[in-house]
Amino acid sequence: MCQLLGMNCNTPTDIVFSFEGFSKRGGLTDHHTDGFGIGFFESRGVRLFLDDKPSAQSPVADLVRRYRIKSENVIAHIRKATQGRTTLENTHPFLREMWGRYWLFAHNGNLKDFRPPQGRFYRPVGNTDSERAFCHILEQLRQRFPEQPDTAALFAAVAELSGQIRSYGLFNFILSNGEMMFVHCSTLLYYIIRQAPFGTAHLVDDDIAIDFARVTTPHDRVAVIATLPLTHNEHWHQFACNELVLFKNGEIVHRRLPESPVYLTQEEGLAIARAAGV
Amino acid sequence: MCQLLGMNCNTPTDIVFSFEGFSKRGGLTDHHTDGFGIGFFESRGVRLFLDDKPSAQSPVADLVRRYRIKSENVIAHIRKATQGRTTLENTHPFLREMWGRYWLFAHNGNLKDFRPPQGRFYRPVGNTDSERAFCHILEQLRQRFPEQPDTAALFAAVAELSGQIRSYGLFNFILSNGEMMFVHCSTLLYYIIRQAPFGTAHLVDDDIAIDFARVTTPHDRVAVIATLPLTHNEHWHQFACNELVLFKNGEIVHRRLPESPVYLTQEEGLAIARAAGV
Repeated sequence: MCQLLGMNCNTPTDIVFSFEGFSKRGGLTDHHTDGFGIGFFESRGVRLFLDDKPSAQSPVADLVRRYRIKSENVIAHIRKATQGRTTLENTHPFLREMWGRYWLFAHNGNLKDFRPPQGRFYRPVGNTDSERAFCHILEQLRQRFPEQPDTAALFAAVAELSGQIRSYGLFNFILSNGEMMFVHCSTLLYYIIRQAPFGTAHLVDDDIAIDFARVTTPHDRVAVIATLPLTHNEHWHQFACNELVLFKNGEIVHRRLPESPVYLTQEEGLAIARAAGV
Repeated sequence: MCQLLGMNCNTPTDIVFSFEGFSKRGGLTDHHTDGFGIGFFESRGVRLFLDDKPSAQSPVADLVRRYRIKSENVIAHIRKATQGRTTLENTHPFLREMWGRYWLFAHNGNLKDFRPPQGRFYRPVGNTDSERAFCHILEQLRQRFPEQPDTAALFAAVAELSGQIRSYGLFNFILSNGEMMFVHCSTLLYYIIRQAPFGTAHLVDDDIAIDFARVTTPHDRVAVIATLPLTHNEHWHQFACNELVLFKNGEIVHRRLPESPVYLTQEEGLAIARAAGV
């Protein structure tokens, strides 16, 4: 299935440890992936690495590991194609500029018959449901707000748009402008916030451990978001179905939980994803 | 000085040979560069590698060499900062979407006091004169043409806008949407079109030669654009000051030459660039 990974921190942080587990989980190292992408914000700039070819040894993934880029906001995605051919222009995360900042978006899901009207400000380049959803969100935000509104108003608008779009199907997504990170859960998505006192974490799918206390300061705060927990000795929090959360500086600043929150088991979430072909 | 490199072809072509010479010329391998970037179109998608840190051994440049990406349209830039801090968001080429396609832009020059009004559709993220010029060109095109016009109308509009913007200073640029490539010369810029019968080329700054006949088919046509000629045994054509040329499929489809074209010597062009600090 498609896999999402996000990181939002209060200090530039290296994502290599989480990326190792994520790439194993998502099948990045086997031949079943239809593309992979990772975008790093560095201040207002973005470094975006996309690989549209299934590859056991992606040179781009190698670069990510060797480069050890430090970033406050990272979004990564491993794709299993459902709509759109596997081409570079259909590879997540997608990038656009709004209100003088870059925005990145990655989606895990499948939106059926989602055909919003053509935007004035934003248009898809490829032919995925995901890029259409991203452009539609930006288009609606830009039409409502000529300038970036305050965070509460922005959160409310993203919540409303997410609610509309998820009526078309599975809509797990991560959206960031380099200072804040929206996370919307449709089926399966987890997060952890690491902060002092830091401990040692063990990857689920690999015999790798890291002692975060050795690579952090007491003021660091790092939120990691993933389709499935990446470590087995830490407590990952599950997002409820249809929950929207906004992270900033590694902590939750807004959240909208449904009145009667539903939490799927991993088996249920994975079965739904399989049935939807994602 | 800043250096521009462009390639426009009728078949996906590997730019590694030209990139070797370009990177030597632009000081990519010494410590005087303030950043480097290269963007490859692959069909409608873009692969963009940016390096904002001066580095004798850029891991991104290494990746470009090892990856041997084949592309029909490539834009590369080595930067010597004149305006704006050296940060990722100020690194060329810049990327935006217009009319459902990605556009890349790189600039060699210096525009003094160029402060166009804030755009409705496009805004700079960084603080360079170059990104302002790029956003202004897209903004004006998008305001005039809600959909992509025919090539002649588009060329006339880009010619008009280039003429306006160059009144602010040096404005050598390359602009592409993955199928066509605009090249505007303010001071120094050269091109060569390689096609059958192909011969052997020798890099100016390195003891490297390539026999293009061995790596091409008789139908291939490759236009290479560079601030200074990259090979010494081929005839490079110089663009006139204030000339605009549009390449498509490796050939010139439109050009606008001033009534009394002026061609600077390399010494004159380099002296002007030095005086302008670029």
